[in-house]
Amino acid sequence: MVLNAMKLFIGIDGGATKTIARVEREDGTLLGIGKAGPANIRLDPLGAWASIQKAIAAGAHPIPLADPQYQWHCGAGLAGTQVPEAIAGFLALDHPFPHFYIHSDGYTSCLGAHGGANGAVIAIGTGVVAYQIEGEQVTRVSGWGFPQGDEGSGAWLGLAALQQTLQWWDGRRRETPLVARVFGHFQRDGEALIRWANTAQSQQFAQLAPLVIATAQGGDEGAIALLTEAGEEIGKIWQALVARQEKPLPCSLLGGLAAPLMPYLPTELRSHLVPPQGDAAQGGVIFARREATRATA
Amino acid sequence: MVLNAMKLFIGIDGGATKTIARVEREDGTLLGIGKAGPANIRLDPLGAWASIQKAIAAGAHPIPLADPQYQWHCGAGLAGTQVPEAIAGFLALDHPFPHFYIHSDGYTSCLGAHGGANGAVIAIGTGVVAYQIEGEQVTRVSGWGFPQGDEGSGAWLGLAALQQTLQWWDGRRRETPLVARVFGHFQRDGEALIRWANTAQSQQFAQLAPLVIATAQGGDEGAIALLTEAGEEIGKIWQALVARQEKPLPCSLLGGLAAPLMPYLPTELRSHLVPPQGDAAQGGVIFARREATRATA
Repeated sequence: MVLNAMKLFIGIDGGATKTIARVEREDGTLLGIGKAGPANIRLDPLGAWASIQKAIAAGAHPIPLADPQYQWHCGAGLAGTQVPEAIAGFLALDHPFPHFYIHSDGYTSCLGAHGGANGAVIAIGTGVVAYQIEGEQVTRVSGWGFPQGDEGSGAWLGLAALQQTLQWWDGRRRETPLVARVFGHFQRDGEALIRWANTAQSQQFAQLAPLVIATAQGGDEGAIALLTEAGEEIGKIWQALVARQEKPLPCSLLGGLAAPLMPYLPTELRSHLVPPQGDAAQGGVIFARREATRATA
Repeated sequence: MVLNAMKLFIGIDGGATKTIARVEREDGTLLGIGKAGPANIRLDPLGAWASIQKAIAAGAHPIPLADPQYQWHCGAGLAGTQVPEAIAGFLALDHPFPHFYIHSDGYTSCLGAHGGANGAVIAIGTGVVAYQIEGEQVTRVSGWGFPQGDEGSGAWLGLAALQQTLQWWDGRRRETPLVARVFGHFQRDGEALIRWANTAQSQQFAQLAPLVIATAQGGDEGAIALLTEAGEEIGKIWQALVARQEKPLPCSLLGGLAAPLMPYLPTELRSHLVPPQGDAAQGGVIFARREATRATA
């Protein structure tokens, strides 16, 4: 280690569609924010490293990548880290950072949302996952994949809407405004709907969630019931987080479905909601600073 | 067409794991039954033709395949026929049968179960699908793929059991005998369970259904509730079939989960159940005879 070298702290938010790197000097001033393509460490570790290095280089400009006059401390929140083998394989690849720390993107989102203080986040988008950090204790709830998990998510809502539509189509259920809207989305072509469903992944099912929300806004009881059930599922996540603590921690909602589901959440959860202070890249910087301190402690 | 040639009627039951061909002479005497490997017309049309011809050759022995002294009429019930393009592509391949008729395996199962008379079948295995035949009217209910359909099936039961286990694992649900049994199935290793679930298809989820049945037999209320819900889903299928008729038709249950789910079915459905008279290959023979009559009418 180069003693007395100036430190750079890099927070990386790497996901399925894009990578963001936030680069800060030791005193906390922002050097820059860089962006690049996807960083999927499970499916494409080499490509993920390329995206991450490109994003860091853009954020650190004009300092050359891994300039030895600096100590580079990178804290990365990455999607796909639930597979330990993926992390090990990824880190074994050639890269220029001696201090590169990895955690899930949910963990860095939680650090960023509460500025490093104790708190929780529930991210509601295609899937649902919650993280809670209290000191060294990290709790994760939900987000175990689809269809076996992610209850209350966009994929879960879209799947339920599609199930109801197929049940109506073959006579197992009455037509409702929600069913009519979903069937209309497929130009009222049942064969097309079935073909689509047979290859749909969670992202595709989640594309139907806005139909549920729009139909509920039109007053449809069936759609409102589905959103109410989603809200109850989020409530169970909250209860599982609270059960780990003496008293509930502040919680931030993240993700595209956080706002539309807000009215359907349990009152107790809503009373503990706080807006996020920062994003996952900022959380990555906090992560990098902590690990750097831990390493020298 | 060779006039006055003797007719052979072949019923083919082609599925994901094996192919069965039943060959009958015109007077109804059985010439033979042949077996071969899988016949997946969607994924492997050439392989499907190979399996079918091998099964027919074995069943027709000692008559050589497609011997021109005979008129060969083949009625095939095949899995995967919900995709019209798959049927067309399959039939366009080179084969020696001028009279080859295709329908779904559910349709030929229904013909076989009722000896060609009007009636219904509900097949409950990895998936759930129902067919009802009344004269020219064929009704299909459920079986639209997983997880968007197949409510009440083995895959559906297994998925529900796994969902409950994951919900318990991260604190969203209390432990129950069902959860304990499923978790025990994975040697109480949550990470292993999650890895398994992330690649599981409907067949894998269905492997957990016997755990639900065993736990219900042990008196677990949660497992009994799941089987009750499955029985209700089968009841909805029955209601959708009945709604197409002036009065309910006799119905046969097929598939590995028919027996264990029997106690959970609605009373009205149970009162119309009859044992199947014959199998899908026998149904294929009936199908072939009908199509031959239709062609010459």
